[in-house]
Amino acid sequence: MTATETLPAVPVAEPIPADLRVAVLGVGLMGADHVARLHRRISGARVAVVSDAAADRAGQVAAEVPGCRVVPDPLAAIADPEVDAVVLASPGRFHEEQVLACIERGIPVLCEKPLTMEAGSSLGIVRAEDAYTARTGRRLVQVGFMRRFDPEYAQLRELIASGAIGEPLVVHCAHRNPAVPPGVTTESIVQDSVVHEVDVARFLLGEEIAAVTVLRPRSTRHAGEGLSDPLLVLLETTGGRMVDVECFVSTGLAYEVRTEVVGEDGSAMIGLGQGVVRQSAGPAGAVRSTVIAPGFRERFALAYDLELRRWVDAARRGTVDGPGAWDGYAAQAVCAAGVEALRTGRRTEVRLESREATQS
Amino acid sequence: MTATETLPAVPVAEPIPADLRVAVLGVGLMGADHVARLHRRISGARVAVVSDAAADRAGQVAAEVPGCRVVPDPLAAIADPEVDAVVLASPGRFHEEQVLACIERGIPVLCEKPLTMEAGSSLGIVRAEDAYTARTGRRLVQVGFMRRFDPEYAQLRELIASGAIGEPLVVHCAHRNPAVPPGVTTESIVQDSVVHEVDVARFLLGEEIAAVTVLRPRSTRHAGEGLSDPLLVLLETTGGRMVDVECFVSTGLAYEVRTEVVGEDGSAMIGLGQGVVRQSAGPAGAVRSTVIAPGFRERFALAYDLELRRWVDAARRGTVDGPGAWDGYAAQAVCAAGVEALRTGRRTEVRLESREATQS
Amino acid sequence: MTATETLPAVPVAEPIPADLRVAVLGVGLMGADHVARLHRRISGARVAVVSDAAADRAGQVAAEVPGCRVVPDPLAAIADPEVDAVVLASPGRFHEEQVLACIERGIPVLCEKPLTMEAGSSLGIVRAEDAYTARTGRRLVQVGFMRRFDPEYAQLRELIASGAIGEPLVVHCAHRNPAVPPGVTTESIVQDSVVHEVDVARFLLGEEIAAVTVLRPRSTRHAGEGLSDPLLVLLETTGGRMVDVECFVSTGLAYEVRTEVVGEDGSAMIGLGQGVVRQSAGPAGAVRSTVIAPGFRERFALAYDLELRRWVDAARRGTVDGPGAWDGYAAQAVCAAGVEALRTGRRTEVRLESREATQS
Amino acid sequence: MTATETLPAVPVAEPIPADLRVAVLGVGLMGADHVARLHRRISGARVAVVSDAAADRAGQVAAEVPGCRVVPDPLAAIADPEVDAVVLASPGRFHEEQVLACIERGIPVLCEKPLTMEAGSSLGIVRAEDAYTARTGRRLVQVGFMRRFDPEYAQLRELIASGAIGEPLVVHCAHRNPAVPPGVTTESIVQDSVVHEVDVARFLLGEEIAAVTVLRPRSTRHAGEGLSDPLLVLLETTGGRMVDVECFVSTGLAYEVRTEVVGEDGSAMIGLGQGVVRQSAGPAGAVRSTVIAPGFRERFALAYDLELRRWVDAARRGTVDGPGAWDGYAAQAVCAAGVEALRTGRRTEVRLESREATQS
Repeated sequence: MTATETLPAVPVAEPIPADLRVAVLGVGLMGADHVARLHRRISGARVAVVSDAAADRAGQVAAEVPGCRVVPDPLAAIADPEVDAVVLASPGRFHEEQVLACIERGIPVLCEKPLTMEAGSSLGIVRAEDAYTARTGRRLVQVGFMRRFDPEYAQLRELIASGAIGEPLVVHCAHRNPAVPPGVTTESIVQDSVVHEVDVARFLLGEEIAAVTVLRPRSTRHAGEGLSDPLLVLLETTGGRMVDVECFVSTGLAYEVRTEVVGEDGSAMIGLGQGVVRQSAGPAGAVRSTVIAPGFRERFALAYDLELRRWVDAARRGTVDGPGAWDGYAAQAVCAAGVEALRTGRRTEVRLESREATQS
Repeated sequence: MTATETLPAVPVAEPIPADLRVAVLGVGLMGADHVARLHRRISGARVAVVSDAAADRAGQVAAEVPGCRVVPDPLAAIADPEVDAVVLASPGRFHEEQVLACIERGIPVLCEKPLTMEAGSSLGIVRAEDAYTARTGRRLVQVGFMRRFDPEYAQLRELIASGAIGEPLVVHCAHRNPAVPPGVTTESIVQDSVVHEVDVARFLLGEEIAAVTVLRPRSTRHAGEGLSDPLLVLLETTGGRMVDVECFVSTGLAYEVRTEVVGEDGSAMIGLGQGVVRQSAGPAGAVRSTVIAPGFRERFALAYDLELRRWVDAARRGTVDGPGAWDGYAAQAVCAAGVEALRTGRRTEVRLESREATQS
Repeated sequence: MTATETLPAVPVAEPIPADLRVAVLGVGLMGADHVARLHRRISGARVAVVSDAAADRAGQVAAEVPGCRVVPDPLAAIADPEVDAVVLASPGRFHEEQVLACIERGIPVLCEKPLTMEAGSSLGIVRAEDAYTARTGRRLVQVGFMRRFDPEYAQLRELIASGAIGEPLVVHCAHRNPAVPPGVTTESIVQDSVVHEVDVARFLLGEEIAAVTVLRPRSTRHAGEGLSDPLLVLLETTGGRMVDVECFVSTGLAYEVRTEVVGEDGSAMIGLGQGVVRQSAGPAGAVRSTVIAPGFRERFALAYDLELRRWVDAARRGTVDGPGAWDGYAAQAVCAAGVEALRTGRRTEVRLESREATQS
Repeated sequence: MTATETLPAVPVAEPIPADLRVAVLGVGLMGADHVARLHRRISGARVAVVSDAAADRAGQVAAEVPGCRVVPDPLAAIADPEVDAVVLASPGRFHEEQVLACIERGIPVLCEKPLTMEAGSSLGIVRAEDAYTARTGRRLVQVGFMRRFDPEYAQLRELIASGAIGEPLVVHCAHRNPAVPPGVTTESIVQDSVVHEVDVARFLLGEEIAAVTVLRPRSTRHAGEGLSDPLLVLLETTGGRMVDVECFVSTGLAYEVRTEVVGEDGSAMIGLGQGVVRQSAGPAGAVRSTVIAPGFRERFALAYDLELRRWVDAARRGTVDGPGAWDGYAAQAVCAAGVEALRTGRRTEVRLESREATQS
């Protein structure tokens, strides 16, 4: 099943009073994306504040969003009474202080990875939030492991959870980048790239990682000076399952992430551009299969969203840019000929006004 | 390329003042979906009014959307001064009057197909809108041919437009439904199902349909009484291209729409759950290929949207339901072990606090 | 299932006395291929005689096959007492006379298509063979519709015959050639290319074709002068099933034949390079699937054949060209290290002699 | 490219005098397969002698092959003056003595793996053959690593050798069996199953394996008592490349072998039932692709072989079991209608005699 087919049916939600006022801290590539996304694609929220060490960048980003203010000091932004929640896309070394400030104020924070720069300070955040939760019953911190929201990963996890492939025993991962910026080190490949597979393994298997081994195959000639690339990383879980990860960040080709889970009763793979590919027993022998959308609402869920988004955007600009009345008329004229053709059993010409004649 | 990979990069938009106030007329299955979608997924718009012949249904739908009113008379809804735009999901026989009312008021309308019940009345709408456009320079009417917004169809059209497969000569379509409601007739299959392929053909080929032939192969035993199912429909365009359509609405299986465009210099197919599959010349012979996402922003565009949507929804309910601080800490601890493993070349155990110990 | 996976298990056959002595009439491209194939790949037969209007070509081909004679007159070749069976790859206009001669002599003939140049003369052959069969109980004539022996087509037919997709209703075919020789006419496309789909339709559906329609879409600019290419051909069977055929012989790309059978209870397609791709109901919704080989004998059936064929060929030349004793030794040394690694749980170095040291 | 598409064009060979007389030693499952294959499918060879510890089994197998003798003592079979070559499918513990006997007699031997039971005795065979080769210039020993002859593996190696994916850096293998016989131990999984991946790695990479690590993930509940299944095996080559192997012999599903080679400039995978799947750069971004057959001779190479094999077999039994004269006539009649339909542009009925009327 491809992503198009997997959007959940539109849920009926409880009434939600007003829009969430979000502060986005750090508006580099990632943060600016978040601002645009919150502004243009996410209902129920608005970007109230942006903050960045580079004042001009903050100003430019804010200028795109009506009503958005620049607050240069990130801690002031977090403390701002007109801010309900925070998206943290600032450099990782500032995360600890900023997340703790969010916890202190009791507002939700979506923190891009890494949570902090070391495990120790991350544990400090766990404890601070735990203390808050103990008082209030509420959680505040989310980490930006976005793959969990990708339909393929989510479906793979559901498949495992359903028991359909039995206990997972081995997971194979490939993580391939076309290139990395200068300055990337072999250590940072582990910290910034492999970390996604670490989270994927924990997400899919529901277990902690107990041990890690990192092997260095022969490096590509395209690797930067001193870089070991690719790496082979082995993760062992507390339950004895194993995960092998090929992490190769200078492939020169494309961005490719692939995950195969091998279970006691079948296996399933994502990342081939085909949704979840399963290997399972069938009535006439084992098959490799993908799911077909059950109905048009599933098949075109994304198309309906994009149609309405585009229509709303155009309407607010005073225009229409989708298929118009002429398209409706032409389709109707063809179908009328089609119905006649059905009745007569004969080739039937379509009677269509000339577009130009219509307009004159 | 799957849908995940094809969401456009977040665009920088001009400032947009206030939310578009939308009236949704007809809140059956389709209209209720549109209400939920506008309310939960589309930023920049809100459902201000709903209208339906069934008052209780209108009331139920309105109750889900804060601030949404029920206006029983659809023409009153269109005339409502607090309505900026209209989504028409009412029965087709009401479309003519309602669309004309929108044009008269000069507000945009997204009309589910069919535009009207006959080609003649559709042409009337074309002329009414043309007259409006002549006065104002603005268009108002969009018809709900949502496939044009599906990433696969949009990419296929772009591929044709790029000239990469040369002039299109033949198009093969399959349109398969698992089942249709009782009451569907062979004529309505042409009008309600084949109409989508008619629009797809016009959209992809950029030409009008000049003639139609409808053939009736042997029918499935699953077809309703008197139904010819499947049909084979042949469309000929003004430019001499041909489109064959298998329309089969009682397959018992799934919803499957497939389109292959055969051009002078290659061919491309969608609907196999793999995005656009191309046949083209390559350096070592002809290949069948699909595109791989160039980077993580393309690959995970949908995941980022879903992450933020879920986070905003949860935040407004006062909760966090994504990966939390513990996940950030655990990933950090594993990566720390990974960096040590990289340095030492040895299997390295992960030092992780016990979750329970942390919480006590 | 790919072809590799589909070779039948090696059958146990009844004892067969001596090699079949075959005359190959016509040794152009196709006939020469048949000679080489019979000589090198087919056990139980030998090419005893070749015949061709071009004497030098016949001589060259015969020279490759020990014991093979040239008999210039094809009727003399058929009459030759040391010929048990005939392969006819001569030009179609000679087929009638030559096949009739084979029937008269009562020897089997494999006749490349067309059987004869017109339906009337083909019917004459049917009658002549029927008369022979009435006397002897034996059949003599086979026509070279080789697709019936292709594993994909054979599996598709078995699938239909099994009832798994229900009654077939519609068949979609594409037949694409990269190019055709000069001199090909639109009529000859029907006679020489579409004829394969005609046979495929009859083979798969088990019914005669009752009517034909041929449509001419816009032609490719690559088509020769006066050629209509592609064609759309519609076949209707006596049972009301329909077959649409895209026949496109100047694609410039590759040789591509694709067939999809749409039945009451599912559909199946071949020609995507993946074996038989089925669409069928599954426990968790409809799936698109391919079969995985059940065991190594099926998966590597072709590999075993090729291994033995290559080994026999090499042995007869006094050589060995496959993996040798060193490969056996090296594998053994690695596995010994593997068993030690398994026992110790540690990385284990392989102890391997130097190849050079061994040889000195 | 699937296997069907990859058979080499029929080669023109040097004249070969008489059939190779082969002794097959050991006629269990594997040996009996080899006998049937040599007898029915391989031209240029015949099974002259079979030998097996079980006399009745040997007798049964020999009875299927005209002229085949049973020689109970394998060394006598090797020494038989009417034996030109030997296929060894006897238990591994006898291989050393039997291969050495073949070398001594100077006749070719195809030895099923393992070459011998330990690396030391295998090295002895290498030396014995080297000595023979030093005297005669000829090699004698081939080991039954049949995967090298599988079209997918052979194509993958050619792709690597062509330089198209750059230097290979990492290889991922999966080797999955549905089940193994009782008595299989974890050590024998390494020796009998992983050994194939060892040879594949050496074959594809052209390097020796320098070190091995074997890891034991959590075992499937389907594994026999005391069996570690699956295993993860890591091979390191002398050139620093790495190969990871998942070997899982109790999947309960199917036989699945998959190999992906990741190179500096692209990657390629086999085992998905689609031939070689490549990831490579393209003019419009990176693509995942498979090759399409260039012409009908490549596409139907296997079909032509199977057609002739079936025809020869039937002819020797005095029958024809392929498409017959009626099929040739019916196709001709349909094509005649097709040519008329082409000329007139109209649906044309096929004029076909009734089969029954013809026969009366």
